[in-house]
Amino acid sequence: MKPERFDHTICAPASARGGAIAVIRVSGNDALRCVDRIFRGKTSLANAKGYSLHFGTIHDADGSLLDEVLVSVFRAPHSYSGENAAEIACHGSDYIVSRILALLLENGARMAAPGEFTQRAFVNGKMDLSQAEAVADLIAAQTAAAHRIALKQLKGGFSDELAGMRAELLHLASLLELELDFGEEEVEFADRTLLRELVEKVLTHCRKLIESFRLGNAIKNGVPVAIVGNTNSGKSTLLNALLGENRAIVSDIAGTTRDTIEETCNLDGVLFRFIDTAGLRDSSDTIERIGIERAYEKISAARIVLAVLDLTAPLPDLLASTQDIAARVSDDQQLIFLLNKADVVSDETVRNVRASLPGRLAFVIAAKSGLGLDALRHELAALWRDLDTTAETTLVTNTRHLEALQNAAAALRRVQEGLQTSLPTDFVAQDLREALYHLGSIVGEVSNNEILGNIFEHFCIGK
Amino acid sequence: MKPERFDHTICAPASARGGAIAVIRVSGNDALRCVDRIFRGKTSLANAKGYSLHFGTIHDADGSLLDEVLVSVFRAPHSYSGENAAEIACHGSDYIVSRILALLLENGARMAAPGEFTQRAFVNGKMDLSQAEAVADLIAAQTAAAHRIALKQLKGGFSDELAGMRAELLHLASLLELELDFGEEEVEFADRTLLRELVEKVLTHCRKLIESFRLGNAIKNGVPVAIVGNTNSGKSTLLNALLGENRAIVSDIAGTTRDTIEETCNLDGVLFRFIDTAGLRDSSDTIERIGIERAYEKISAARIVLAVLDLTAPLPDLLASTQDIAARVSDDQQLIFLLNKADVVSDETVRNVRASLPGRLAFVIAAKSGLGLDALRHELAALWRDLDTTAETTLVTNTRHLEALQNAAAALRRVQEGLQTSLPTDFVAQDLREALYHLGSIVGEVSNNEILGNIFEHFCIGK
Repeated sequence: MKPERFDHTICAPASARGGAIAVIRVSGNDALRCVDRIFRGKTSLANAKGYSLHFGTIHDADGSLLDEVLVSVFRAPHSYSGENAAEIACHGSDYIVSRILALLLENGARMAAPGEFTQRAFVNGKMDLSQAEAVADLIAAQTAAAHRIALKQLKGGFSDELAGMRAELLHLASLLELELDFGEEEVEFADRTLLRELVEKVLTHCRKLIESFRLGNAIKNGVPVAIVGNTNSGKSTLLNALLGENRAIVSDIAGTTRDTIEETCNLDGVLFRFIDTAGLRDSSDTIERIGIERAYEKISAARIVLAVLDLTAPLPDLLASTQDIAARVSDDQQLIFLLNKADVVSDETVRNVRASLPGRLAFVIAAKSGLGLDALRHELAALWRDLDTTAETTLVTNTRHLEALQNAAAALRRVQEGLQTSLPTDFVAQDLREALYHLGSIVGEVSNNEILGNIFEHFCIGK
Repeated sequence: MKPERFDHTICAPASARGGAIAVIRVSGNDALRCVDRIFRGKTSLANAKGYSLHFGTIHDADGSLLDEVLVSVFRAPHSYSGENAAEIACHGSDYIVSRILALLLENGARMAAPGEFTQRAFVNGKMDLSQAEAVADLIAAQTAAAHRIALKQLKGGFSDELAGMRAELLHLASLLELELDFGEEEVEFADRTLLRELVEKVLTHCRKLIESFRLGNAIKNGVPVAIVGNTNSGKSTLLNALLGENRAIVSDIAGTTRDTIEETCNLDGVLFRFIDTAGLRDSSDTIERIGIERAYEKISAARIVLAVLDLTAPLPDLLASTQDIAARVSDDQQLIFLLNKADVVSDETVRNVRASLPGRLAFVIAAKSGLGLDALRHELAALWRDLDTTAETTLVTNTRHLEALQNAAAALRRVQEGLQTSLPTDFVAQDLREALYHLGSIVGEVSNNEILGNIFEHFCIGK
């Protein structure tokens, strides 16, 4: 497929609906002439300097006044997209915005696809692909840590790191290619020990980045916290109480099955993703057993497991389910027992249950009345605060990058094996090129329309 | 109360949450110096020219990069508020916006009250009060007609009209005051016939504006359409079907009682406000009777009454309720009978009911299946389209203006009576001053903090 030539002027609302001011973005070689056709000001925008600001009016097709506006003019290549561009700031009325967009369409522009301004910035060399992806992450960032990661990536921190890795592999490749040129003579020009060290170094770096995804993803999408417990132990009440007024976003996380409820919430600056699972209990019902199995899968994916125990239940039942949950939690997960409904049982019951827990963190709470929840919130935030502030190293947050790194690492392992088993040089060089390809795909050195389409279709309109 | 001196720098988000770009507005004598403290660019903003655009970065308190931004600089009096002002366009991230606002607060600004930028524009003489109110109307306008009215008011059309009326009354007042100066001599300087003509002319103008409110309010807040009918006749189903995908806003109209549901909807460019009333039926239940009485009140306030008849009900019952509704609809209201559930009765039944209706507009529909609803929608829009396009004259849309005009008209009627009954000139002059006061209050010639507070508290933040 031939890459699009971007010769069309595009336009889109760049601000959200409902504010006092709305901003409409226009980009393309003809952008300024296009806006000129509906704008009346002191000077024509097509002749205006870049980085200039113009007050004027927009008129509807019948000549009637539509609004008073401010237009910012940008000239290629000094604009966000790298093309001629204008930003029209008008009154934040849906009617006005829709009319201005309609007028732009009548005068030669077309509606921009999601992320198309950023895609053009990439195509015009204003940023590489990982930087373009960071734009969307920056906008979505809800915490200081997520913001810091996205901004570092946007400013090219991750790209520089990848460039360093690629430079080392390219050096390695050039040594191997030299051997291939003289392949007939079966001479080993390159020092195999040096080659192995180089590969090992880059592979280690790759693995470090791959490992960083677990933390990076938790920071970006929220630390996954599974809420588990028997039916009617108060899981949903707990979830609602925890979200309470701190609720930031209520949403299904894309791609998850709908049989668990996931909601994100910012507690003291840390983003958590709470996963309310189906109640755990023995069941002969097939459908229900599937739900329970999924609950256990969610437990294994979580970083923190909140096990809700109903203090009003018979002690033997409680103990059985605590054992069951504890057995399924791994060492690098944090298990927290919540002794719920503490306000309706005796202190002795609380003590008894607490004493019989398999020796981990426990909080006495009453989800309905809010008892003990502040302490729990602080504990959750504190558990992650430390990790948050140590995020000075690069953290991978993007699954596309993760996959590319995993593919690069796999290719590098084959290079390693090839060097150890004295595989013919051309096979080794082939694997090396594959590793380079995958690392290059992250920044967009190699890309195709399908990859670009996948990336930019998830952007918002106007970006 | 001493009027506020506006010596503080204020800031607020001017765009809505969730877009690609966010705009933060800063205004006040120190606005540019305030932004300079957190902005790093090529030049200082405090020294920048008005209407200039600056690329740079915003840094957090610890010096870390927060975002890359574009800052528009405006210098008093050539800004929206009439003060020095800056607009910061940053990435549309809640985190970034909240941090930038926090930094501005740390550096001498305070959060703007709702409408405070516009209030400052009023105080600084950039616009009068009715123009300031038009800003909020312009942003809220959902149809071409509402937009046209708001824009005309914003551009001073209504103010000019009021200025003309006030000039005539001032002329009248000066004639009367002259008499008062020579009051001891009991001489009538002014020609009483001329005086009466002048008052009559202004009073007629006042009454025309007062009458225009009914149409103006319908255009601004939606043409009120009452949906009435017996319980289970399908009123709610009809409302949902009419709103369907055309639903623009779902809201209770402020100030209405909650026992009727009101929803606005844009049908073919006309905004309608549908009012779903309690079912009408004889009832001995006191509470239910109150609901039914309110339904009848809503009928009297509506411009269009949709009477929903359940074709499956016994014919005598149907006829009784049609008579009942028809008796309560006045001549300037449009009554439309809707013969509902037509898909489950025989054609003969439809014909019989239709033949017995008290001879007005009727549509055969089935709200559940959507039968006949397109025709109804077009009829509703067509009924109002004509009124919409004739809106070249000034239409009063604001209840504050309506009240001021009613008060002015009452005072002018007293002036009229005084002139006719040869009341002492000083009483007449007193009533005339009152009329002038009320007309002046519309544009803010006379105002106080309470009036201003009432007006601007309904603005959005950032405007």
